[in-house]
Amino acid sequence: MTSLRLSNVRPWGGDPADLHIANGVLTGEPDPGAEVIDGAGRLVLPALVDAHAHVDKTTYGGPYRRHTAGSSLASLIDNERTHRESLGPVAARAGDLLDRYIAHGVLHVRSHVDVDPVIGLASIAGVQEAAASRPVSMQIVAFPQSGLITRPGTLALMADAIDAGAHLVGGIDPAGFDGDPIKHLDAIFGLAADKGVGLDIHLHDRGTLGAWQIDRIVERTNALQLQGKVTIAHCYALSTVDDARQGALIESIAAADISLTTTAPGTTPQLPLARLAQAGVRVGLGHDGVRDLWSPYGTGDLLEKVLSLAVMSGYRRDDDIDSVLRLATHGGASVIGLPDYGLTAGCAANLLLLPVSSTVEAVTERPQRQVIAHGVLL
Amino acid sequence: MTSLRLSNVRPWGGDPADLHIANGVLTGEPDPGAEVIDGAGRLVLPALVDAHAHVDKTTYGGPYRRHTAGSSLASLIDNERTHRESLGPVAARAGDLLDRYIAHGVLHVRSHVDVDPVIGLASIAGVQEAAASRPVSMQIVAFPQSGLITRPGTLALMADAIDAGAHLVGGIDPAGFDGDPIKHLDAIFGLAADKGVGLDIHLHDRGTLGAWQIDRIVERTNALQLQGKVTIAHCYALSTVDDARQGALIESIAAADISLTTTAPGTTPQLPLARLAQAGVRVGLGHDGVRDLWSPYGTGDLLEKVLSLAVMSGYRRDDDIDSVLRLATHGGASVIGLPDYGLTAGCAANLLLLPVSSTVEAVTERPQRQVIAHGVLL
Repeated sequence: MTSLRLSNVRPWGGDPADLHIANGVLTGEPDPGAEVIDGAGRLVLPALVDAHAHVDKTTYGGPYRRHTAGSSLASLIDNERTHRESLGPVAARAGDLLDRYIAHGVLHVRSHVDVDPVIGLASIAGVQEAAASRPVSMQIVAFPQSGLITRPGTLALMADAIDAGAHLVGGIDPAGFDGDPIKHLDAIFGLAADKGVGLDIHLHDRGTLGAWQIDRIVERTNALQLQGKVTIAHCYALSTVDDARQGALIESIAAADISLTTTAPGTTPQLPLARLAQAGVRVGLGHDGVRDLWSPYGTGDLLEKVLSLAVMSGYRRDDDIDSVLRLATHGGASVIGLPDYGLTAGCAANLLLLPVSSTVEAVTERPQRQVIAHGVLL
Repeated sequence: MTSLRLSNVRPWGGDPADLHIANGVLTGEPDPGAEVIDGAGRLVLPALVDAHAHVDKTTYGGPYRRHTAGSSLASLIDNERTHRESLGPVAARAGDLLDRYIAHGVLHVRSHVDVDPVIGLASIAGVQEAAASRPVSMQIVAFPQSGLITRPGTLALMADAIDAGAHLVGGIDPAGFDGDPIKHLDAIFGLAADKGVGLDIHLHDRGTLGAWQIDRIVERTNALQLQGKVTIAHCYALSTVDDARQGALIESIAAADISLTTTAPGTTPQLPLARLAQAGVRVGLGHDGVRDLWSPYGTGDLLEKVLSLAVMSGYRRDDDIDSVLRLATHGGASVIGLPDYGLTAGCAANLLLLPVSSTVEAVTERPQRQVIAHGVLL
């Protein structure tokens, strides 16, 4: 296999150095026969990690469509069920989006993929097909977007999805959307325990209702010894309860080693990132949908989400902005459990080269970048 | 002078049409001898309007600098006064930023420019120099960034600035920062009336304190018959008082024909845009600072601010997102009082050509664009 030397690059904005790659892995060892790429002082980051995507929903690859949904969660979900069949095959649309991801250096993705009695496992298969032919690692969450308790037959399909290669069991607002939090949580935790996989649960419910469900998720995580294998996505409750309740929730989330993902919502207060970091909670960042029936936003460049989250967190200092970039890299890698992730010897050589001098400029400028996947310059 | 035909373009995303330009002005008349540019179905927008900038403060054109300020307004202002002399000449820095603006199609700018006893009118002169050699129209607000009542000598310098060509009198948090709202407002309104110019007043003060100052600004605007000539910038109070108070404030702002500008703040609720539009209040959008001693954010592409404001306003529908794009174009033009602005015959031919099919995609994609200034393709 090829070996490569990236000369004069600045890992995570630090001092200039050479990076050595052999057989797709970073090594500490120079190889005299290696092909040399002149880094010209560019910044090197490990590949971006989208820890919360919905690549099956995108309309990339098709013509522009006007937004047709109302603003409630139920309206958004209904609108999608009405129009999704007109979008064309999942594999093609998801593939076009993944090409965008890869061009921007997003090489690791955890995507929720809809499962319900109408589409069955078709979207799961489409996403698997799109990812298989591309240099991107894909985790799939079998996601009951249209309801679980309220949509009979979905749980059995989610079990089939896991058997067909989906990696995690999903869930969605057990109380606020699906209407029976105990039945919903018992069902998805039971399935996860049965199949020996983890869970990633959408929780938009705010305030005390969301907080109460976090407690129920923590209970089940501990009871089933699923510590380290459960993620709560969005988790708006955490930023919409009072300070003391927030502190108690973070403590129990940390103790159960539950991870969180955010997609930098526009109109909900951001997660308390500093407090979560202090408690040692793993946090990842995701695109959420990209140009789909839910919203027209997104381009596939996760650095845009980093920028949004930094701005909406009120950050101006370099170390604060840098900490948000860490969510889109190391944070996401810790949420989805990537082995061998990073810039040190032994890590897989999935890298970005950016023509900027600092991690802050990577975020503020979001320049065109070169991407190295498994040691190969794309 | 040259005449130009833009064939097959889509004004504001509408049906394909040809636009005819002669002597820098849009005409309804084809000229058989005109040079033809094939629009290839691209979107045409009128030039972007940055209605609230601080181009004297930017560090563009210099090396990257770490953020050194604390988070309070006073700390940000003090930090700037400490470090600004190390930044190099205003004309060069502002010029580099204006080049970025122009490349992104921002051809009309209202910039607040610092005036105080240390720098005197030097920054005013620097911004004037930068703008004079570039195809951008520049309005300058003589801005008492470091205080007016608390910094004796500043008012006289602001009068000198108007005499030297600055277009408007500025102000800043008459209560929360300068400490004496009545003295501050009487001073700046007195100066504006004396010189026969308008005002543009920074008001970050939130809640009831800010609302009380809005009432005082409205009183003076009406008493001095300055209707149509006063802008309140930021105006955080409007989104941080209760619904009834907000309604009453909007009514009096509309009656005094006071305009507002927003810079899409990251951690303050956004202006109530729909309610302001319904009341007929003119609203513009601005970059605020771009990579300066206050914040590292911004690139000179005002469409990024449009995107941020749309996302943080919770907008998903096409007409809502379109309305935010209007703030960055027609809205800003109405705030700064541009004559002959728009896409109809008789308007100045300051235009953007964007390779997208809809105004929403102009915002979500923010593609590279071609710019026409005064009828000339740049």
